[in-house]
Amino acid sequence: MPIHVLIVGAGAVGAFYGARLHQPLNKASKETLVSVVCRSNYNIVNKKGFEIESPVYGSSVWKPHRVFNSCTQAAASGIQFDYIVVTTKALPEVRDDSVDISPVVTGISAIVLIQNGFGIEWPYRDRYPQSPIISCVTLVSCTQTKPGLIVHSRWARIYMGPFYTKNNPTQQPPLALQTETTSNMTTLVDLFKQGGVDEAYMMDAIEIQLTRWHKLAINATFSPTSILGGGVGIASLLPDPTINEHARECMREVFEAGPKLFGRPFPSHLASIDSILENTKKNVGFKPSMLVDWEEKRPLELEVILGNPLNLAKLHGVEMPRIQTLYALLKSAYAQRKSAHSKL
Amino acid sequence: MPIHVLIVGAGAVGAFYGARLHQPLNKASKETLVSVVCRSNYNIVNKKGFEIESPVYGSSVWKPHRVFNSCTQAAASGIQFDYIVVTTKALPEVRDDSVDISPVVTGISAIVLIQNGFGIEWPYRDRYPQSPIISCVTLVSCTQTKPGLIVHSRWARIYMGPFYTKNNPTQQPPLALQTETTSNMTTLVDLFKQGGVDEAYMMDAIEIQLTRWHKLAINATFSPTSILGGGVGIASLLPDPTINEHARECMREVFEAGPKLFGRPFPSHLASIDSILENTKKNVGFKPSMLVDWEEKRPLELEVILGNPLNLAKLHGVEMPRIQTLYALLKSAYAQRKSAHSKL
Repeated sequence: MPIHVLIVGAGAVGAFYGARLHQPLNKASKETLVSVVCRSNYNIVNKKGFEIESPVYGSSVWKPHRVFNSCTQAAASGIQFDYIVVTTKALPEVRDDSVDISPVVTGISAIVLIQNGFGIEWPYRDRYPQSPIISCVTLVSCTQTKPGLIVHSRWARIYMGPFYTKNNPTQQPPLALQTETTSNMTTLVDLFKQGGVDEAYMMDAIEIQLTRWHKLAINATFSPTSILGGGVGIASLLPDPTINEHARECMREVFEAGPKLFGRPFPSHLASIDSILENTKKNVGFKPSMLVDWEEKRPLELEVILGNPLNLAKLHGVEMPRIQTLYALLKSAYAQRKSAHSKL
Repeated sequence: MPIHVLIVGAGAVGAFYGARLHQPLNKASKETLVSVVCRSNYNIVNKKGFEIESPVYGSSVWKPHRVFNSCTQAAASGIQFDYIVVTTKALPEVRDDSVDISPVVTGISAIVLIQNGFGIEWPYRDRYPQSPIISCVTLVSCTQTKPGLIVHSRWARIYMGPFYTKNNPTQQPPLALQTETTSNMTTLVDLFKQGGVDEAYMMDAIEIQLTRWHKLAINATFSPTSILGGGVGIASLLPDPTINEHARECMREVFEAGPKLFGRPFPSHLASIDSILENTKKNVGFKPSMLVDWEEKRPLELEVILGNPLNLAKLHGVEMPRIQTLYALLKSAYAQRKSAHSKL
């Protein structure tokens, strides 16, 4: 029996990792068949597969095992999926992807979430209390430049850890769930490595949350600042000392809150505020994806980048004043833009 | 000898108070002749004077004693001005009004500043170390609806106090300057009262700064929030609990900083955060003047509303994190808009 993987929301990140995991003729170990659920790019992918260009893995066309236009269609195929990998944008205020995947979730499915933000696991944990959930933080730079064409430029690093309990990652989960999740995760890391993703790492439940939280320092600071600060990439704003002070202090709020919420310092390999600022300054021309979403008038990942972290912090009596101000302003500007838009 | 007053920058506030002070045929006390320096409205005012409509003072046409198009022209008139009343918008980053008035400043001139913001007196104190400076905070709702037409709708309250020393209002000034400033101020309050402005009050040097600072809670919070929060009046934003928390906490930062900087609590008659929020919520449709300036692509009073207060606070080791974030974002958005504009 092959291992069946379903990528739900096969945009740039989903297609990139799907292609790495797909091993249809594997003799050394178990065959892995990756199918995809596509939305806007369904027609082209169904016809031609994905073209993937990468400086690391070369250029190739990847034909997924099956291409579906919905999870309902995927369920109708009769395939039992071992891994359901969700790589959609996390927009709990717009749609609940945990509902969308319900037709394909079976007793054998592990749910793998490769998404930005914080608290993205919460609706899945509520809806599937028995299912293993693997929470992933990835560092990968790839874009779908047109439907079906994925350009990978830098990095392919993925951290994963189990997700057991909403709001309290220190709570002990049932032993069966722990065993199953760990086994799923171990296999998944192997599959990534077989696919050439050397930098696939396992973490414990707290480390992965700390890693997610750490990434918030970047996303919760730079994305809103880029939008509210006039709609430009953060690199061109940071040389201004006023913006620099603001950005540094926003990041400090996030950095100081993390260990208070999770009872442990950040994993030592994660970047410091200084090095994040230095690297970001060099990245001239780069636009945070939230700024691109803003420009394209697409929904913003407001709740998972700002709302959920603020809620959890408040629950623990930890304040992040500047981040709260960014959330309030951006939420308001976003609502105003939507209402202005709807008048058109 | 009549008392000569020159209003520099006779827009709505300048024209309104100029008309109240002007008493050309006063038999009861000293005659007061008010002249004006007009900019954009010079032609119409020179020809017809100001039309002023007010529910309190009625509708009338006010012909100033003389109408000038610049301070240089005013100086050429040979009149020695006892009071030079500056009612321009305070834009130290765009222009230095303390330079503009230099032709009319003589040894007898008291400089009266009726302007919003904080630190507006600084360039005047630097340039005219010997001159009495009277710092005024006004609560008046009036607009120039077209050139030369001033509509007064509510309030005519003015607080004034001496300004002696930049950055340290607790420092003792030279006795001669104290005496002269107090005498000028006493006369000015009498002139206002003769003109029907009953609510003209004198304060000491610290009280007036505390009053200015108190007003910042409103201006430094609501104006940037209205602009960054999507370009709408604050009243329509405040019902949202996220914006409400943000606004309340911004105001709290300003409220807590004031007494630390000036060594004294706020004068007891000044409004609380709760009552400001309640009143503001009711003011549906109202747009802060900074939002109107933003919409009209005019310069913003960024430095006197945000930059100067933050500088003084930092000098005293007091942090206002949310206000600093508002400053950074708005300054950046403003710079971006200017650079986008300049490409047109």
